[in-house]
Amino acid sequence: MNIWDDLIRSNRFLVFAGPCAVENLEQIMLAAKVAKALGAVGLRGGAFKPRTRPESFQGLGEEALKYLALAKAETGLLVVTEVLDEDSLNKALPVADILQVGSRNMQNFALLKLLAKVDKPVLLKRGLAATIEEWLGAVAYLEAGGNRQIILCERGIRTFETMTRNTLDISAIPLLKKLTPYPVIADPSHAVGRRDIIPSLAKAAVAAGADGLLIEIHPRPETALSDGKQSLNFEEFEQLMLELKPWVQVTGKKL
Amino acid sequence: MNIWDDLIRSNRFLVFAGPCAVENLEQIMLAAKVAKALGAVGLRGGAFKPRTRPESFQGLGEEALKYLALAKAETGLLVVTEVLDEDSLNKALPVADILQVGSRNMQNFALLKLLAKVDKPVLLKRGLAATIEEWLGAVAYLEAGGNRQIILCERGIRTFETMTRNTLDISAIPLLKKLTPYPVIADPSHAVGRRDIIPSLAKAAVAAGADGLLIEIHPRPETALSDGKQSLNFEEFEQLMLELKPWVQVTGKKL
Amino acid sequence: MNIWDDLIRSNRFLVFAGPCAVENLEQIMLAAKVAKALGAVGLRGGAFKPRTRPESFQGLGEEALKYLALAKAETGLLVVTEVLDEDSLNKALPVADILQVGSRNMQNFALLKLLAKVDKPVLLKRGLAATIEEWLGAVAYLEAGGNRQIILCERGIRTFETMTRNTLDISAIPLLKKLTPYPVIADPSHAVGRRDIIPSLAKAAVAAGADGLLIEIHPRPETALSDGKQSLNFEEFEQLMLELKPWVQVTGKKL
Amino acid sequence: MNIWDDLIRSNRFLVFAGPCAVENLEQIMLAAKVAKALGAVGLRGGAFKPRTRPESFQGLGEEALKYLALAKAETGLLVVTEVLDEDSLNKALPVADILQVGSRNMQNFALLKLLAKVDKPVLLKRGLAATIEEWLGAVAYLEAGGNRQIILCERGIRTFETMTRNTLDISAIPLLKKLTPYPVIADPSHAVGRRDIIPSLAKAAVAAGADGLLIEIHPRPETALSDGKQSLNFEEFEQLMLELKPWVQVTGKKL
Repeated sequence: MNIWDDLIRSNRFLVFAGPCAVENLEQIMLAAKVAKALGAVGLRGGAFKPRTRPESFQGLGEEALKYLALAKAETGLLVVTEVLDEDSLNKALPVADILQVGSRNMQNFALLKLLAKVDKPVLLKRGLAATIEEWLGAVAYLEAGGNRQIILCERGIRTFETMTRNTLDISAIPLLKKLTPYPVIADPSHAVGRRDIIPSLAKAAVAAGADGLLIEIHPRPETALSDGKQSLNFEEFEQLMLELKPWVQVTGKKL
Repeated sequence: MNIWDDLIRSNRFLVFAGPCAVENLEQIMLAAKVAKALGAVGLRGGAFKPRTRPESFQGLGEEALKYLALAKAETGLLVVTEVLDEDSLNKALPVADILQVGSRNMQNFALLKLLAKVDKPVLLKRGLAATIEEWLGAVAYLEAGGNRQIILCERGIRTFETMTRNTLDISAIPLLKKLTPYPVIADPSHAVGRRDIIPSLAKAAVAAGADGLLIEIHPRPETALSDGKQSLNFEEFEQLMLELKPWVQVTGKKL
Repeated sequence: MNIWDDLIRSNRFLVFAGPCAVENLEQIMLAAKVAKALGAVGLRGGAFKPRTRPESFQGLGEEALKYLALAKAETGLLVVTEVLDEDSLNKALPVADILQVGSRNMQNFALLKLLAKVDKPVLLKRGLAATIEEWLGAVAYLEAGGNRQIILCERGIRTFETMTRNTLDISAIPLLKKLTPYPVIADPSHAVGRRDIIPSLAKAAVAAGADGLLIEIHPRPETALSDGKQSLNFEEFEQLMLELKPWVQVTGKKL
Repeated sequence: MNIWDDLIRSNRFLVFAGPCAVENLEQIMLAAKVAKALGAVGLRGGAFKPRTRPESFQGLGEEALKYLALAKAETGLLVVTEVLDEDSLNKALPVADILQVGSRNMQNFALLKLLAKVDKPVLLKRGLAATIEEWLGAVAYLEAGGNRQIILCERGIRTFETMTRNTLDISAIPLLKKLTPYPVIADPSHAVGRRDIIPSLAKAAVAAGADGLLIEIHPRPETALSDGKQSLNFEEFEQLMLELKPWVQVTGKKL
């Protein structure tokens, strides 16, 4: 059975969890087992990391993909990983079930044209200063090339507020549900960049009509090579999944 | 029994509903009866309207206050109305149960100092480009003068997105619940400026931890003298209150 | 001769300089003498300071006005000072030549309606998140009440950029020159909040068509009670006025 | 003699002019001749156009490069054109003297890594919601790979203001001159998206310390396939160059 059909036909609330970056086999395997045990459908993990500065950790590349493949074999979770260009796409294809376009690449039309010809779902994150109109333009690039397996991910927009890293645009969720036929998920971890209010935003996304969530988890967030401040540890993630249940129930979906 | 104690000790989810501006007796009386029947605790209605341009409808002033008093007598709802300066404050005091500081006046410190000395709750809206830090500064002005009856209202911030009038900063709700002891409510009507997604945002606010909602309703939104595009008609409001129920139930509060 | 006519008919480039807040007689007198000697037409100095938090220095009030009157008597400079409400307006009227509406009060329509009836020029700062359209709305309030002595001051808008306190919207200058008949000045000090690039922005404002500048100066910026980081000391101000000369000359105005 | 050395050692104010997109041979040849005659050092013209939607004109590709080569042969102007990925880079290399990274690709690190290994100047536009800090991160990618031939181009940032397409961040010019050793230019055409105030912003950029300008010109802006509203016709461009002269003279540079 096709992955896409399964994703959209099932009545499941779609949780994708995992670390920002794959750091080593132990880390991703632990995260995968916890994600699986707690009801996630997918494992996120970056192999190729677009970082603001060149001296920052850029991801383990092919080694990370190897670890993701092992974690997938062990747990059966769908693997979501970001691609940046033709080279990383070709490397990711044998392992990834869902190809992520990161925020900085939402209007990388060369990349979108490549992904438009791939027969795999694309998780298209909103650019951090992209209007919804522009986001729909990026969707149109995928559709124009023939790919209609699209998951839209609201991950916060850039505003003047500094108490959160970005501002989760909660309105984008119901708007996109009206304007497109695609699943819409939220990434509260990147949106706020601080652990403490992720559960509140996750519930808000459910209530606003989101079809799922992207959540950063890490065995030891304080040692993470990237995004540690916004990663939940496993106990926090377990607590989140527990707290989410009654809210998801109201929607009639299953977690 | 004191209004404030009742507001914060009761286990009710606090809905304040009503038109943007009081336009005539029939309109506000109809709105009040519907609000009461559907479970609101308060009636909102502007007597003094701060408008971008001087030729726009500026509110009925004292006449509006008279109508609000009649609606209050009929329904027992708490009256929430905006004040702009010492004069409008003095006029509103005999009628209003809760004094609203509008978005444009969040940093009108002369007004805040006046309200700090009043023994009535203040509904303090967030400035449309105010940081949460600045909002807490405005709270501090009220507290410094001795008023600790404060309701905080997130009503959307100004961003680059144009598909909604403003961007509801859903993160502000859990942050303020951590940073202050006060009730926090959301105003999805002003935040998005379009009727269709108000219910989704109202539910999201509940799930994010809001203590209540401010909702614009109007017997005939298409004829409203201000904010018609974001006002729900009575059927839409009834539907909203119905849809909200299961979400509020999850929180353990009553609607 | 009328102050307003003199301001707009003269061919002078209008520099208003002075400290953020009047702190004591010596400080404002020193600033006034330097401003006068270097070619400024006006002395700015806050008596009533709108501050984000109540515990911050709120200005010396009437005492500051007394010092401003002495500095004016000594130098002949026009006095520009901010008013917040009816009370501060009444106190400022005998001393101030130009009444400033601060950024936070641009849409304080109660205040604008009071100023509309005063026969003195109003220096109307742009709200920090006000569109030009909204700024024109505030202008319309002054005009509607009969006051057409208006100086518009671009002082930076709130954006995501954090390397400067605000972002000077240089485009506002030519746009307002097209849309209104009023003098338009720039306040680079508040716009950027850092001393080092104020001269570059001052020149840019001249080149963009500004009719003048508002510049914060202080005898000892490192000890200032407010806005020290953006205040020029007297040597820096002298250097600025020197550097400005050739640019102002290109416009055909006199400095 | 090396192009880069010539660019940075000459005392010329660097004007790059040309149409948004190369549309046909006649258009680009006309623009090139006018640009040359009026003192520009370079010809801009897009062959590969990143457009918000796939149905918009995407550029003539290799045909455009052929026309640019002919215009270069005729006028001796440096050719500046945008590249999007490895393929367009390889095609542009034989013709382009300066490789442009567009706003949407400022954080396309895969592209920056490719350009870091090319021995040609890169014109790096600021991302439309990039902080200066992030822009410096993009610069670091070029430097890390060995390319230190970098021209930085401020082209406006996204803000709430809608009277202009973007907000030219004039402060970025002096800040970058302090923080980097590279030429900094401004693109007022993209910044404001309306013809009427481009001259004012061009002068402001000169006064703020810019080393040059990127200006969109078109023989018949009203028929342009993209960005017509912000393109100057040849008479307007001639007028602009004339008006710029006295301002550039103040800086000691030559136009």
